[in-house]
Amino acid sequence: MRTIDWAGDAVVILDQTVLPHEVRSLTLSDVDALADAIHRLAVRGAPALGAAGALGVLLAVRQAEAEGWDGPGLDAALDRLRRARPTAVNLAWGVDRVAARLPEGEAAVRAEALAVLDEDVAVNRAMGQRGADLIEALCGGPGGGLRLHTHCNAGGLAAVEVGTALEVVRALHARGHVERVYADETRPLLQGSRLTAWELDRMGADYRVVVDGAGPSLIARGLVDAVVVGSDRIAASGDVANKIGTYPLALAAARSGIPFVVVAPESTIDPATPDGAAIAIEDRDGDEVLAWAGHRVAPAGAEAVNPAFDVTPADLVTAIVTERRVVRPAAGERP
Amino acid sequence: MRTIDWAGDAVVILDQTVLPHEVRSLTLSDVDALADAIHRLAVRGAPALGAAGALGVLLAVRQAEAEGWDGPGLDAALDRLRRARPTAVNLAWGVDRVAARLPEGEAAVRAEALAVLDEDVAVNRAMGQRGADLIEALCGGPGGGLRLHTHCNAGGLAAVEVGTALEVVRALHARGHVERVYADETRPLLQGSRLTAWELDRMGADYRVVVDGAGPSLIARGLVDAVVVGSDRIAASGDVANKIGTYPLALAAARSGIPFVVVAPESTIDPATPDGAAIAIEDRDGDEVLAWAGHRVAPAGAEAVNPAFDVTPADLVTAIVTERRVVRPAAGERP
Repeated sequence: MRTIDWAGDAVVILDQTVLPHEVRSLTLSDVDALADAIHRLAVRGAPALGAAGALGVLLAVRQAEAEGWDGPGLDAALDRLRRARPTAVNLAWGVDRVAARLPEGEAAVRAEALAVLDEDVAVNRAMGQRGADLIEALCGGPGGGLRLHTHCNAGGLAAVEVGTALEVVRALHARGHVERVYADETRPLLQGSRLTAWELDRMGADYRVVVDGAGPSLIARGLVDAVVVGSDRIAASGDVANKIGTYPLALAAARSGIPFVVVAPESTIDPATPDGAAIAIEDRDGDEVLAWAGHRVAPAGAEAVNPAFDVTPADLVTAIVTERRVVRPAAGERP
Repeated sequence: MRTIDWAGDAVVILDQTVLPHEVRSLTLSDVDALADAIHRLAVRGAPALGAAGALGVLLAVRQAEAEGWDGPGLDAALDRLRRARPTAVNLAWGVDRVAARLPEGEAAVRAEALAVLDEDVAVNRAMGQRGADLIEALCGGPGGGLRLHTHCNAGGLAAVEVGTALEVVRALHARGHVERVYADETRPLLQGSRLTAWELDRMGADYRVVVDGAGPSLIARGLVDAVVVGSDRIAASGDVANKIGTYPLALAAARSGIPFVVVAPESTIDPATPDGAAIAIEDRDGDEVLAWAGHRVAPAGAEAVNPAFDVTPADLVTAIVTERRVVRPAAGERP
C-alpha cells in the first residue's frame, strides 16, 4: 500500500501516528481533514507532503464544485493547505504545480495530481541508485560493509511509496553493502524508532535505534562510515533544513571526516530562499516535548521550546543527491 | 532534605526515579540495596555517587560486623559498589577514600564518610561562585541577562545538596544575571525534563525544556551565551566524559564561538585515565530507549545501542571549573 494515494473520491493515507503497532489507513474527504492530518503528522515527510499538496488541490476543486465555492473560497482552501506546515517547501510546491491546471478543469487537475505521485516514485528510485553509487564512491568503493547513520524518517513512509535517504540505504542493502544502520529515535515524535525502525525491519537490515544525543559520539568513536538524511527545504546557498537534530550529525561528521549526504528531490530545492536564515522554522506545541503518551514528564509549570527543524550550513554538507544530479556544497557548489 | 544522607543506621536517598511527580525517600540498609539503587539511577550524578561510595563503606563495615563477613567478603562487597556504574570516577573515589580508614574501625569510617558529604556541599558552593565569575567574564562582564544551556542534571539532585553546573546557574540567577536557561530533556532517562526542570522551577528561573537534538541549532541561531555542564570523569588530557548528548553541544559551541564550561570537583579528575579513549563508557539496557513509561515505541524486533556517556575532546572545552581552580583545555592547559 502507498503511504498516500487517491481512492477515486478521497485521499487515503497510512496513519503514521499509530505505526508501528497498528497499520491503519485514514480516508480524508475534504481539504480541512487533509490539512489537519498534515498538521498532526498523520502524513509527513517532504515528498509525501508534495503529494498531499497535489491531491489537496484535487479535493478542493471537487469540494468547490459540490459546495458551490467561489474563486476566493477555493483560493482560501488552497492557502490553508499550503500553510498546514511552513517548513517543507514540497507542500506548497505540490499545491502550486497542480493549481496551475485549475483553469483546465477537474480532469486536468486529477491527471496532474496523479502524475505528481507517479513521478515521486520514479524520481526517488533514481535518487536511491545515484545516492548508493555516491556513498560507495565516497567510502572507498563497493564491497565493504557500510555503517550508515540516519535521522528521522526519510523512507517510503515519508514519500508516496519509495523513500529518499532510506531508499539509498535500501539500495545499498540490496547490493549487500550494508553492515549496520543506526537510526536516531528522533524526538519529540519518535519517527526514527517508530517509522524508520519499522521500515528497516521489513527491509531485513541490521539496525540499532539510538537516542538523538548518541549519534555524534558514535561518529567520533569511528562506528559510522556515512550520514545520510533527507531534507524539507534546501536554500539557494546549499543550506539544508531537516528534522531537528540533523545539524549535530553534520557537525560530528565534519569533525570526523565522514560524508554527510542529503538525499532529496529537486522539488525540495527552493531558489526563492537565499539561505538558511531565510527558512521559516516551524515551532510546534511544547506538549510534544513535555508529555509522553498522555503522561506528563516535566513538572506542572514547565514550558518547552519545540522547533521542528534545524538548518545545516552548506559547508557541512558533503553532497546533495537529487534525481538529476549530485551537488557538493562543502566544495563550494550551489544547488 | 539532602539528596543522599546517613540516617544513623542506613543510607537515605531521594528516589530520583519518581521525581518530579513524587518526592519519596528510600532507606537503604545494606550494600546490595545501595548498589542496586545506584544501578537503577535512584541516586545518580557524579558528586552524589562519590557520597554513595563513601556511605557504602560505612554500610559495609556495619554489615560485616553484624553478619560476620571475613576480609575477602568485605572486599567483595566494596567491589560490587565500585562496579555498580563504571563511568563516574567519583563512585570508586568515594569508596577508596573511606575504605582507607577501615583499619581504624567503624567510628573512623563514619567520620570520613560524613566528611565526604560535608565537603561536597562546601566544595560545590565554591565552584558555583567561581563558575559564575568565570562565565560572567567570558560573556563580557556582569549585568547582562545570560542565556545558558545545560544538559542532564548537574544540580543539587546530582550531589549531596548543592549542585555543580546548576549551582553556577543558581549563583548567576541569585546575582540577577540569568535571562533564560535551556534544559535538554536528556534522553533516555529524561533527567533534564524531570530533575533539572524541577530544580529550575524551585529556583524561580525562566527556563525552557528542549529535546536533545535542538540544543546545537539554538546555539547556531544565537540564542545561547554559554553552555555549562557537569562531568562524570575528566581524563588527564582534559577530555571530558559526561551524559550522552554533551559532545554535540560542545561541537556547536565551538562553531558558534561561545564558551563550553565544565563544572566538576577535583575528585572527578582522574590522573590514571590518560585520555578520552581510555574512559570506559557504560552501555545500558536498550529498553531504556525502545520503551517509554512501559509503552513500547519501536517495533517488536528492534534493538537499541544505549551508551550512557560521551566524551568531549579537550580542544572543545573552554574551561573546567573545580573547587580549586579554572583549567582551560582548549587553550592547551591540562587538568
